Amino acid sequence: MRHFLSVCLAVSALGATPLFADPLPSWNDTEAKAAIIDFVERVTDPASPDYVTPDARIATFDNDGTLWAEQPFYFQFLYALDRLRERAEADPSILTSDVLRAAAEGDLGPVLHAGEQGLLEVVAVSHSGMTVEAFQADVRDWLETARHPETGMRYDAMLYQPMLELLAYLRDEGFSTWIVSGGGVHFIRAFASEAYNIPPWQVIGTRATVSYDEENRVLMKGPEIGFIDDKAGKPVGIDQQIGAVPIFIGGNSDGDFAMLDYGSAQGGPFFGLIVHHTDAEREFAYDREGPVGKLVRGLDEGPGKGWLIVDMARDWGQVWPAE
Amino acid sequence: MRHFLSVCLAVSALGATPLFADPLPSWNDTEAKAAIIDFVERVTDPASPDYVTPDARIATFDNDGTLWAEQPFYFQFLYALDRLRERAEADPSILTSDVLRAAAEGDLGPVLHAGEQGLLEVVAVSHSGMTVEAFQADVRDWLETARHPETGMRYDAMLYQPMLELLAYLRDEGFSTWIVSGGGVHFIRAFASEAYNIPPWQVIGTRATVSYDEENRVLMKGPEIGFIDDKAGKPVGIDQQIGAVPIFIGGNSDGDFAMLDYGSAQGGPFFGLIVHHTDAEREFAYDREGPVGKLVRGLDEGPGKGWLIVDMARDWGQVWPAE
Repeated sequence: MRHFLSVCLAVSALGATPLFADPLPSWNDTEAKAAIIDFVERVTDPASPDYVTPDARIATFDNDGTLWAEQPFYFQFLYALDRLRERAEADPSILTSDVLRAAAEGDLGPVLHAGEQGLLEVVAVSHSGMTVEAFQADVRDWLETARHPETGMRYDAMLYQPMLELLAYLRDEGFSTWIVSGGGVHFIRAFASEAYNIPPWQVIGTRATVSYDEENRVLMKGPEIGFIDDKAGKPVGIDQQIGAVPIFIGGNSDGDFAMLDYGSAQGGPFFGLIVHHTDAEREFAYDREGPVGKLVRGLDEGPGKGWLIVDMARDWGQVWPAE
Repeated sequence: MRHFLSVCLAVSALGATPLFADPLPSWNDTEAKAAIIDFVERVTDPASPDYVTPDARIATFDNDGTLWAEQPFYFQFLYALDRLRERAEADPSILTSDVLRAAAEGDLGPVLHAGEQGLLEVVAVSHSGMTVEAFQADVRDWLETARHPETGMRYDAMLYQPMLELLAYLRDEGFSTWIVSGGGVHFIRAFASEAYNIPPWQVIGTRATVSYDEENRVLMKGPEIGFIDDKAGKPVGIDQQIGAVPIFIGGNSDGDFAMLDYGSAQGGPFFGLIVHHTDAEREFAYDREGPVGKLVRGLDEGPGKGWLIVDMARDWGQVWPAE
């Protein structure tokens, strides 16, 4: 009680700060920004027919390509390659397939050719046989030293400033903000609190099988995939971990299509957002082709479903956070 | 901002209410109640060496036998039997095994003899082939009309008043409260918000495989079990859905042992609580024997690990909520 009153007094003291400061300063004044603000105002105004109670203000976002960058390849995979190389130097016998041998030599061709299975194979060898805790400490170590091959930036600095502002704006307006990613849940949780202010229980992702070691009382990551949180798996992951349907969903690739479509289907107030990577100068430009972030259905069908296609080059005044 | 200030003013106006009202009025003044309050005060006092920040104040509870009753048999199973009977009347061909035929006739012997597999078989036939939404509406319908065979009460009135007070007390002190149950997650979510003030995303449980039907844009419950949230599965469920270790864990059977032990193992401030069903007069008395809620390791090893064994007859002044 004492703390609560202190907060109240502090808030009163701040009464002079502008109440209507721009919640999305890194967004240009285009229709994208206006549409977001209009939606948030409608669902938070008790007098509006579209009013949604705070408990139902659930917002989910893809991670790779939506909240942080994903070029030239998913950052988690670059981490996996680094660790695979190190492990293979110590023990070459772990390279039991052509895909793994190629990956350890930095040749991505065979891995990409093997598709999702190729990625999972590399991830399985490099991420398993350790406790969840040790894995996450290792991810944090890697983020401290690894640098992006093109920008030279820390990977966890390649967050999209406009999306950070959107997350904060939604939370300020009573939304809970969740990540629903095809990437690994343990990987993302290692940095999501610090990067996005999103706690581990609001991160949903692909996961390895985890088992409880009763003798040592620790959780171990296994090599098998337990759940793939991509495409039609995203609504399933939302059911597993949220048990309610988001009213605001953001993504950037066709891996997010089912999640967006599921939210749209409810018939209530809904905001669908697709980040379209149109900015080769400040970030990367890609959509219908390539091994990462393929976006076809979202561009073709999204506008007809009322989803906002964010044109990064036009709608964003700034891409990366200030250092 | 306007709402927040209103709340502050309202709180100020309430300044005359007693700040130190008993948070656990249905608990007798025994060492059990004192131990709970002592722990909560230590972890919430910033000056205490055991202080825990609010984000890490995670409390998990088993459901059957911990938050509500579980005799003569898990309530979800009684629901499953009711629905199996109705379905079999309409279409006897669904009774494809001796276990199912016996269950439909109300003969529980063969089901119990088949153990967990028997239960899962009945649940699979009675709970699958429908959307998650339709299933939960059906559970709520059942709760409206079904009555407990011995008490004549609604099943969702057979909640333990002392545990409802404990949940509210923990939340008032900045904890998040979660259910981690061997029961079905969709079943519990159908009533947990109303019964416990626990939202769907804070319910972890056993679950069927769920698939997303892209054509109809709905989630379908399948007949296969996707995850069993019991015994060593409970720490795994906590990892899947919370991603952090609870500091307060309550249970009542050996199905909760691994979860309690996992929390204990962290070495930080930790409170383990086991509800011991000692009250044949007001509720039921059972522990080491029987098909439901077997408690052996908890009684033998719990006290040595510092866990509180709640003696329902001695420690609880009231069992059920007032009507």
